[in-house]
Amino acid sequence: MKNNLALMADFYEFTMAAAYYQNRMFAPATFSLFIRDYPPHRGYFVSAGLEEVLEFLESFHFTQEDLDYLTTTGLFSEEFLQYLSRLKFTGNVFAIPEGRIFFKDEPILEVTAPIIEAQLVETFVINAINLQVTLATKAARCVYVSRGRKLVDFSLRRTQGVDAGLKVARASFVAGFASTSNVLAGKLYGIPVAGTMAHSFVTSFEEEIDAFRTFVRTFPGNAVLLIDTYDTLSGAHKAVKVGREMLNRGERLLGVRLDSGDMTDLSKEVRKILKAADLGEVSIFASGAFDEYKISEVIEKGGEIDAFGVGTKMGVSADAPYTDMAYKLVQYGRRPVLKLSTGKRTLVAEKQVLRIREGSNLTKDIIALRDEKAVGEPILKTVMENGKRNLLPEPLAAIRDRFQQEFMVLGEAYKSLENPKTFPVELSPGLTELQERTVHEVREKELGES
Amino acid sequence: MKNNLALMADFYEFTMAAAYYQNRMFAPATFSLFIRDYPPHRGYFVSAGLEEVLEFLESFHFTQEDLDYLTTTGLFSEEFLQYLSRLKFTGNVFAIPEGRIFFKDEPILEVTAPIIEAQLVETFVINAINLQVTLATKAARCVYVSRGRKLVDFSLRRTQGVDAGLKVARASFVAGFASTSNVLAGKLYGIPVAGTMAHSFVTSFEEEIDAFRTFVRTFPGNAVLLIDTYDTLSGAHKAVKVGREMLNRGERLLGVRLDSGDMTDLSKEVRKILKAADLGEVSIFASGAFDEYKISEVIEKGGEIDAFGVGTKMGVSADAPYTDMAYKLVQYGRRPVLKLSTGKRTLVAEKQVLRIREGSNLTKDIIALRDEKAVGEPILKTVMENGKRNLLPEPLAAIRDRFQQEFMVLGEAYKSLENPKTFPVELSPGLTELQERTVHEVREKELGES
Repeated sequence: MKNNLALMADFYEFTMAAAYYQNRMFAPATFSLFIRDYPPHRGYFVSAGLEEVLEFLESFHFTQEDLDYLTTTGLFSEEFLQYLSRLKFTGNVFAIPEGRIFFKDEPILEVTAPIIEAQLVETFVINAINLQVTLATKAARCVYVSRGRKLVDFSLRRTQGVDAGLKVARASFVAGFASTSNVLAGKLYGIPVAGTMAHSFVTSFEEEIDAFRTFVRTFPGNAVLLIDTYDTLSGAHKAVKVGREMLNRGERLLGVRLDSGDMTDLSKEVRKILKAADLGEVSIFASGAFDEYKISEVIEKGGEIDAFGVGTKMGVSADAPYTDMAYKLVQYGRRPVLKLSTGKRTLVAEKQVLRIREGSNLTKDIIALRDEKAVGEPILKTVMENGKRNLLPEPLAAIRDRFQQEFMVLGEAYKSLENPKTFPVELSPGLTELQERTVHEVREKELGES
Repeated sequence: MKNNLALMADFYEFTMAAAYYQNRMFAPATFSLFIRDYPPHRGYFVSAGLEEVLEFLESFHFTQEDLDYLTTTGLFSEEFLQYLSRLKFTGNVFAIPEGRIFFKDEPILEVTAPIIEAQLVETFVINAINLQVTLATKAARCVYVSRGRKLVDFSLRRTQGVDAGLKVARASFVAGFASTSNVLAGKLYGIPVAGTMAHSFVTSFEEEIDAFRTFVRTFPGNAVLLIDTYDTLSGAHKAVKVGREMLNRGERLLGVRLDSGDMTDLSKEVRKILKAADLGEVSIFASGAFDEYKISEVIEKGGEIDAFGVGTKMGVSADAPYTDMAYKLVQYGRRPVLKLSTGKRTLVAEKQVLRIREGSNLTKDIIALRDEKAVGEPILKTVMENGKRNLLPEPLAAIRDRFQQEFMVLGEAYKSLENPKTFPVELSPGLTELQERTVHEVREKELGES
């Protein structure tokens, strides 16, 4: 994961850079990263991915191997490749810290750097932040409906690749998941890992109860028995038998896991079976196609489930696997710029987002020019100056706390699982005025309107 | 991307392995990888991802750092960790080569190895093959509807991470895409790269036409001008002006790109503008939210588009971002095994898939026991024996050809974009008999049925 990723870019970044270079365009450019619209049923986003971007920018460079590859395309001058060989990222980054809530149209991050540098990092910046925002937002929805029940990230086997698997573990932990099944994420991010047995473990034994007995012998303090391999209720009775044997040895069965069938009904039946054997303390863990919709449904129907393993649908954000995130040039030199393409509004110039509260509750945000006088809490911070980060890596637990604090004061209507209310986001007077003036000037110049 | 990924596994693989170890279970186990059902509107899958799995298995090992991390969980004995420190993958792999078509329930890959080895590699095997199959299948759908028009992978900025970005480029090339915007994929896989300019390039200039003139000066032989920054038709007229200037210099404008608005109408208008200026040869390239559905619609409505940039929706397989792929124990020692969990059928034992044709057309597949006598072409091959691969890395072009050959002889009804016909897949007499016998024995033993 630590390979050089400077070529993790769309090819047009290089053709544009070559044209900027040949035309001697080195003025500072500001690019703004934002999401154009909410995916279905989303009413907020969770900021995540900044740490990865800062690490990338701070070490941005091209290796000789990278340059050799670019040479093979036959499109770039020796002089330009020489220039790339010395290139570092020397710009400033202004961003919303990880764990905070934000809304559509708001700049999540703005890069100001000589245009070639700011352009070449586009693809990586969008990719990293789009992925983690998508996943953290999906995970936050799961946490919201679970009402305090424990959630575990079980998605690794079907995430879209290794990198996504790591990011799911990280983003879901930020959003409030208790742990992950992903061992590499445990090692790299210090997230607690969890997991006990699969069906293969049960089927590898002649009889199901042999599998249970063998497992609790190896892990007397950590056994969650998977009971649906052949039949959930029959499995529950065998788990009870093993649980009683453990009690007699002074051990305690931690839990049972259901992985198929009607989770509401089965969990109620299993609870009865456990209670009847004086094993009411044994946790009931459920997995299998859970996402925020299914968790919510099972809880509403009174399912007796203490913890959920949340897998694929969360891990790929199945109902909204991407956001409409864009990284757009908003200022070149001193000139505010925008495009007019149908349905794709860009807000000009360097900006700030101001968060307004009533008591502790969030009431609205205002997008303003960065140097405009305005009330409210400014939520973008300077996180990198002249290519050096001044936001040091933050402990994940701190980011997780930041999310919890802010999510708590976001109104229920904006968090609704379906058709949430739209949070009010306004443009400041200064931004409104500059935006209108720029649109007018561009239309006049390019379309001959007056 | 070359880091050690042995910990890219669900934690339960390790707890199970520790229990197998403590119980001295080292017999060979066969796990079968298959897809339980078709995602919406899918009627076939494209095999992809095997190369990555073979590379992983061949170099499978734990580093001291990995073992140190496992030690911190406090759950594993020193003896077991010592065992892991010496562990290699020594098993056999039997698989469908990349580029071939396969169907639900069919084993894509079967691993036979001492149970601890076969178990520990589960997560990586599913993750790698699920992702590439998902993406290659999505890309094949795009290629199918494009009827010979050129497709370019434009998805990198919103793929689910770096790893997915590389795999999209690879899988879409296998399925017939012409090129990718992903420069790193170009370097690593030798896929042709493509791309010219973004809106930021246009807006960084005082006037749109300056941007066009500057770009063609740097790339006189490779210029595709993006014309929708302010207004597509006004942009087309400026591109025509620059195209004529190029002609006067003996150069040729390669193309224009549309990225917003109604692609059908705009492309027809732009073609007229180009023809009226004797620039009818200039290609019209379109991008913006294309997938197989939108490509199909635009072509049916007579859009004048020569090539499509296909982005996010293909890159995350937005309408079906995962498959229901599972890796199940089907044999332990000499004993065929299965689970009975509701709605999750597993086919027992080591298997083969036989492909039956009429002339060259595919007519049906038969899933059989691996050693069963049967007619038809066996499509799984031995690709690894005793931990050594005997399928060497194949050139991507060969895999791409293999796909084209087979896709050509798959009936149209199975390729339909919506509600495709289900391809007939039968079970052989030998497999049917063993399956029924095993189900019966398991029900008798575990559920007390007779």
